[in-house]
Amino acid sequence: MTPQTVRVELAAAGGCDRSYDIRVGQGILAEIGPQLAAHKVTRAVVIADAAVVAQHARIALESLHAAGLDTLVLEVASGEGSKAAGEAARLWGDLAEAAVDRKTHIVAVGGGVVGDLAGFVAATYVRGLAVWQVPTTLVAQVDSAIGGKTGINLPAGKNLVGCFWQPRGVFSDINSLATLPKREYLSGLAEVVKYGVIRDESFFAWLEEHRQAVAAADPAALHHIILTSSRHKAEVVSQDEHETSGLRAILNYGHTFAHAFESASGYGRFLHGEAVSLGMVAAARLACRLGRIDSELVDRQNRLLAELGLPTDVDSVARELATDELLAIMRRDKKAVSGQLRFVLPTRLGHVELVDGISAADVAAVLETTGLEATG
Amino acid sequence: MTPQTVRVELAAAGGCDRSYDIRVGQGILAEIGPQLAAHKVTRAVVIADAAVVAQHARIALESLHAAGLDTLVLEVASGEGSKAAGEAARLWGDLAEAAVDRKTHIVAVGGGVVGDLAGFVAATYVRGLAVWQVPTTLVAQVDSAIGGKTGINLPAGKNLVGCFWQPRGVFSDINSLATLPKREYLSGLAEVVKYGVIRDESFFAWLEEHRQAVAAADPAALHHIILTSSRHKAEVVSQDEHETSGLRAILNYGHTFAHAFESASGYGRFLHGEAVSLGMVAAARLACRLGRIDSELVDRQNRLLAELGLPTDVDSVARELATDELLAIMRRDKKAVSGQLRFVLPTRLGHVELVDGISAADVAAVLETTGLEATG
Repeated sequence: MTPQTVRVELAAAGGCDRSYDIRVGQGILAEIGPQLAAHKVTRAVVIADAAVVAQHARIALESLHAAGLDTLVLEVASGEGSKAAGEAARLWGDLAEAAVDRKTHIVAVGGGVVGDLAGFVAATYVRGLAVWQVPTTLVAQVDSAIGGKTGINLPAGKNLVGCFWQPRGVFSDINSLATLPKREYLSGLAEVVKYGVIRDESFFAWLEEHRQAVAAADPAALHHIILTSSRHKAEVVSQDEHETSGLRAILNYGHTFAHAFESASGYGRFLHGEAVSLGMVAAARLACRLGRIDSELVDRQNRLLAELGLPTDVDSVARELATDELLAIMRRDKKAVSGQLRFVLPTRLGHVELVDGISAADVAAVLETTGLEATG
Repeated sequence: MTPQTVRVELAAAGGCDRSYDIRVGQGILAEIGPQLAAHKVTRAVVIADAAVVAQHARIALESLHAAGLDTLVLEVASGEGSKAAGEAARLWGDLAEAAVDRKTHIVAVGGGVVGDLAGFVAATYVRGLAVWQVPTTLVAQVDSAIGGKTGINLPAGKNLVGCFWQPRGVFSDINSLATLPKREYLSGLAEVVKYGVIRDESFFAWLEEHRQAVAAADPAALHHIILTSSRHKAEVVSQDEHETSGLRAILNYGHTFAHAFESASGYGRFLHGEAVSLGMVAAARLACRLGRIDSELVDRQNRLLAELGLPTDVDSVARELATDELLAIMRRDKKAVSGQLRFVLPTRLGHVELVDGISAADVAAVLETTGLEATG
């Protein structure tokens, strides 16, 4: 499979074209040095997840060195705990220590945690450094590395602090996924299934048909799902970069529930994608309860998630967590307005809508169901 | 004097006009409630300097209440020490605690510290809340509240972390200045003199002529200097919002030295404007040493600064601080590129240029002079 490029089209600002390319393929990590050199960059700070420093970050570094760039590596401990204000402050201090100037570019190598954290640090250091995203997990390649959302968590909730800060480019090297623990890989598939549910019925059907190759991380299947997911994400971001028209919100299908599950269970019990899978199950149930879809679609979605090894048993999760607390967290969600509950809900396979003014009673009912609709 | 309006013209982004108005006048703080109500805002969080909570913030609050807005007040301790990562984190937590959503507006009431800190918190909370600036010090009214620079300090240097985040509007109420300590008022005049030196020879002459009314904070003189300064700042920001063309850098005349004086002396010894006054003295000397201006202009600038009660004795300051440390700090300045020293230097009264590649020896010579050129 030849490497391919997906363009994220963005409106120019201050006379500068901010559009950028996502490169998808095997071995494209080695392109990063020549690419930055072509942008006349002479110094790069690689912010890397500790788990990938010895492997993927080293490939990026060697490519940068070979292209003549001066480099520095800053390591970030693996795990959601690093996406915190204290860690941002440590990195700001490290950049100051290294006398980093406005012409230095940041290269973020790792999963969603490093991409979001390094993106936020880049967005805010000396009022903005250029950043390149090098996602090394599936969830980052298909979702978080694309679109310019950066941020950190607060104890009160995920991603409550952050900026929109678009990268200069994204390098999604399929080879990076070979070292990914199975559980992390599978969790990334939740966002992939999501694109099928929200925008692409035929992609959903393709995933059903190729579920074994997808679950086994077959390279050809990977190439197809990363490329297709990147195209969907890029199209949505191009049309609603700052989440102002409401379109971009469709990407949050399943996420309002997911954030509540993650927050109430204390971050760490679920991988993000696992929480998204459970959130999609809950959201589909809610849509069904409100008469927007029938139970066949709920079952079809949940069956694919389960076949891909993703958790779908919302009932056991909901039994452990207090419904009141989940509702309180959802009211604090960034998409919430004046404490009103809003959800992205399907109307049919391949189409969703942002629905306002959903009653707490309906949400609670979905979380307190006895499990008749659950498939997991 | 009737209140007047200065427009900050900005390029639209995502179809939204981002231009905004600066209102200058006596008593215009009472306009804030009706203004926000006209923007359909229903909830505002007032972030206020502890020193002005009981007076100016209360006027703003009463105006907001009278216009039907729901409000919350968050207090910030007075002083540069509040412009820190820990304080930003505290405010983020307070906003989360209050379940602030994206439709809530922030109203920053205070001087540069609160404006920069509250602006940064607004820029980064849920990826961006609208903010209104209500500057209550002279330096904030003539400079920091206009133009969208927000940020916090790091131990390694001032304003090393921040974002560009334009306010929705600025309310510069001349009445606020009545409660300002004399020393703080005078320090604000450094930025006013700066506009004369960098862009406006006739304004400089006006300041010379009316120096007694200006030093005495006569309301008519205040109205003129705030309006004129706001116009200059607005014009420069309109032409180079993100400091990309180099034009906006002219506003940093005197500031590279000033930041070094402030940082090396541990923030707190000098008010910002006092450091800027000393920085302008040093920058003018440097320009003279490099043959860009003659010593008459150096003397004329320094005489006006001294007559307005501003410090100009760079020699005693330089004797106390290590030249090496000052140079190291200047190399870390945000405007520095690859450790090269850059300064904004006058070529004649009313005109400055950004000059690259200035040798450390020339800068050191200006700091280690025996004081022959000093007028203070």
